[in-house]
Amino acid sequence: MIQQATRTAEAVRPLLPVTGADLRVPLVTGGSAPYANLDIAASAPALASVTARVAELLPYYASVNRGAGFGSAVSTAALDAARRTIARFVGARDDDSVQLVRHTTDALNLLASAVPGDVVVLDLEHHANLLPWARVAGRRRTVAASATLAATVAAPDDDLARALPALLAVTGASNVTGELLPLAGLAEVAHRHGARIAVDGAQLVPHRRVDIGALGIDYLAFSGHKVYAPYGAGVLVGRPDWLAAAPPYLAGGGAVRAVTLDEVTWADLPARHEGGTPNVVGAVAIAAACEALGALDPGEQAAHESALGERLRDGLAELPGARVLRIWDDATDTLGLATFTLASRPASLVAQYLSAEHGVAVRAGRFCAHPLLARLNSGATAVRASVGVGTDSDDVDRLLAALDALVRSGPRWTYDADHLPAPDPRSLPGWLARE
Amino acid sequence: MIQQATRTAEAVRPLLPVTGADLRVPLVTGGSAPYANLDIAASAPALASVTARVAELLPYYASVNRGAGFGSAVSTAALDAARRTIARFVGARDDDSVQLVRHTTDALNLLASAVPGDVVVLDLEHHANLLPWARVAGRRRTVAASATLAATVAAPDDDLARALPALLAVTGASNVTGELLPLAGLAEVAHRHGARIAVDGAQLVPHRRVDIGALGIDYLAFSGHKVYAPYGAGVLVGRPDWLAAAPPYLAGGGAVRAVTLDEVTWADLPARHEGGTPNVVGAVAIAAACEALGALDPGEQAAHESALGERLRDGLAELPGARVLRIWDDATDTLGLATFTLASRPASLVAQYLSAEHGVAVRAGRFCAHPLLARLNSGATAVRASVGVGTDSDDVDRLLAALDALVRSGPRWTYDADHLPAPDPRSLPGWLARE
Repeated sequence: MIQQATRTAEAVRPLLPVTGADLRVPLVTGGSAPYANLDIAASAPALASVTARVAELLPYYASVNRGAGFGSAVSTAALDAARRTIARFVGARDDDSVQLVRHTTDALNLLASAVPGDVVVLDLEHHANLLPWARVAGRRRTVAASATLAATVAAPDDDLARALPALLAVTGASNVTGELLPLAGLAEVAHRHGARIAVDGAQLVPHRRVDIGALGIDYLAFSGHKVYAPYGAGVLVGRPDWLAAAPPYLAGGGAVRAVTLDEVTWADLPARHEGGTPNVVGAVAIAAACEALGALDPGEQAAHESALGERLRDGLAELPGARVLRIWDDATDTLGLATFTLASRPASLVAQYLSAEHGVAVRAGRFCAHPLLARLNSGATAVRASVGVGTDSDDVDRLLAALDALVRSGPRWTYDADHLPAPDPRSLPGWLARE
Repeated sequence: MIQQATRTAEAVRPLLPVTGADLRVPLVTGGSAPYANLDIAASAPALASVTARVAELLPYYASVNRGAGFGSAVSTAALDAARRTIARFVGARDDDSVQLVRHTTDALNLLASAVPGDVVVLDLEHHANLLPWARVAGRRRTVAASATLAATVAAPDDDLARALPALLAVTGASNVTGELLPLAGLAEVAHRHGARIAVDGAQLVPHRRVDIGALGIDYLAFSGHKVYAPYGAGVLVGRPDWLAAAPPYLAGGGAVRAVTLDEVTWADLPARHEGGTPNVVGAVAIAAACEALGALDPGEQAAHESALGERLRDGLAELPGARVLRIWDDATDTLGLATFTLASRPASLVAQYLSAEHGVAVRAGRFCAHPLLARLNSGATAVRASVGVGTDSDDVDRLLAALDALVRSGPRWTYDADHLPAPDPRSLPGWLARE
């Protein structure tokens, strides 16, 4: 009954239109359904305004380095403007460097090559913020228990900081639980101990306004494909000194000032770390997304997501056998996502069932955060549902209704040992099936 | 008079439509002109079929790793199909690895991290194929004089090969002169001495069919943005053994099989070197370009380009004071590009004049090949004009007519000390000027 009440709660509309919002997808049971994309935390669809901006750029697209044509002038101006837009959107300091990279993983690998000392991470991180730090010779990566932080998530303890060397690298929000970390407090602790703080903003930046100047964050990394701009680019924004002193991340044209067969003079930031032709389309796409997200009232975005996130978690709380993973009891804010298990069904079956019979997209797995899943779910896989600016309450309600039907009646279709629907009569789109 | 004859030669039509083909650009002298994009060698516009394919993919765009939604299924199938299409297009062997990277520079940095020995390059290479090899500790990079190859470009000399260690890394075609290297012969020499050959195909692949199996090429690198797919992706195709044994290129999710806080088990190829969320849009765009280029009759593409290239070089040969840079006298094939100087005008002025007064895009500089420019032009900058599948004879004729007018009458506008038009009344497109 409470569940029923949730489902008839006030409708929540999408905040911004995304490309593919009207997509229908085939069902194994025949016919099709509107696509309910609740896998936004993995990779987000392009905002309609991003797709439109790329379409405006493409006729002018040209290489940016020293081309004299009008296309090069436009592409160069667009790339420069993109860096400024991105810097403004995250509240960068005037002298921060805006490095265009591939994605968060790439950004953190770049930063790892520049940190002049040891690094502390938390045990809740996903792989992009665990693995890069262990790679540089002579670097020590210390893993601090996030349990230390548990009772104090709103006021981080100095225990964490005592181990602090050069850098504390933390996620802004867990990609498994959606819980936000107390970034201002962590920054204060890091700085008090003479360290810097880098924030993996892959999950946070698409969902909350992040002002690195106000928060005291030294470095912020995020991915275009998670901020509704899936064109192969990402960003590292932050203090220029370590980056300026680091070896060039990628050796090649664009990163150099002068080259002889014996000697190389490397370029200044940001070109120093951006060897090769820049991904202008990717950068312009991110900037267009920053413009669109930046134009939202921050409270409106948080409220939209809270409404959907609470609807999701409230529904799961009422579902027999469902368990939602959490790191802390006292997190002050949580993104619109929930990772859960069903007592009665394996995670991958749940995910395949939702897609095959209901057109609802979620993700089953360990979310590139194996250590955290080991801790929260004994290493077993779980199901994650996540919302974004293009999500509406109908998407969430359809997920909850489908889960309810699964728990009560089981699937209507048959699934093989890998939990894939068998048979699977769904066809790929024609342009792909053509091969 | 001969020049006149050239200009009235048979019209050459574009082979394939590109996005922006009907673009008009503003002129400093007022009004606008159709955009003649002769800077294709730096970065090429998207093929119309590539833009269309990306538009077909975008509604389905989703993350490829273990997403259960239909969008993930489509995106995963599209990424897998893209690797197969790319492999077929370049004649890859069955066991070759198709690594998705950012661009040629990135591909060669990846290969440099995997080569288990020393590398020989030629002194004609651009920076992407010079700088990466010098970076790995304990690696020796030997620069061989391409002059050695001069008289024997059709039949490479064993002199070159005597220095051969693990790898010979050569460009397929000079990005400065367009001259093609004798790849089959170089591959034979390398293999005879127990070395492998890597080809920087950035310039070659967009313009000539390259069959690495038939040519005996072990590794081929090329860039999406030069094959009419400027969405931030590139490719390294080649032998799997060195790549499988190399340390993962980018540490992060997607590149691993299992992670604990103490241990990492890295994934097999190609995922091993592709940490982070793959650039699905970029990969699908490259595959769409490979499909379109692969559907052309190879002879037709070469003939189209030869016709335009000869028209360009013939016109320049008749232009008073023009000198076209060449490496060899006996190159058997040359791409549709020419790098030249005018005795009477600095290169950057020529390029700015062509853009500002005629809407013709070329490039002035050293083309990320400083050592070669040092040799061929005393280190001074030059002007490069280059054609592609979207170029027609009108583009070339307008360039030649504009150069003729410059040589005979000088510019009609005024230019500042940096050779930029001053004043410059041209406006950027509205979406960019908005900032």
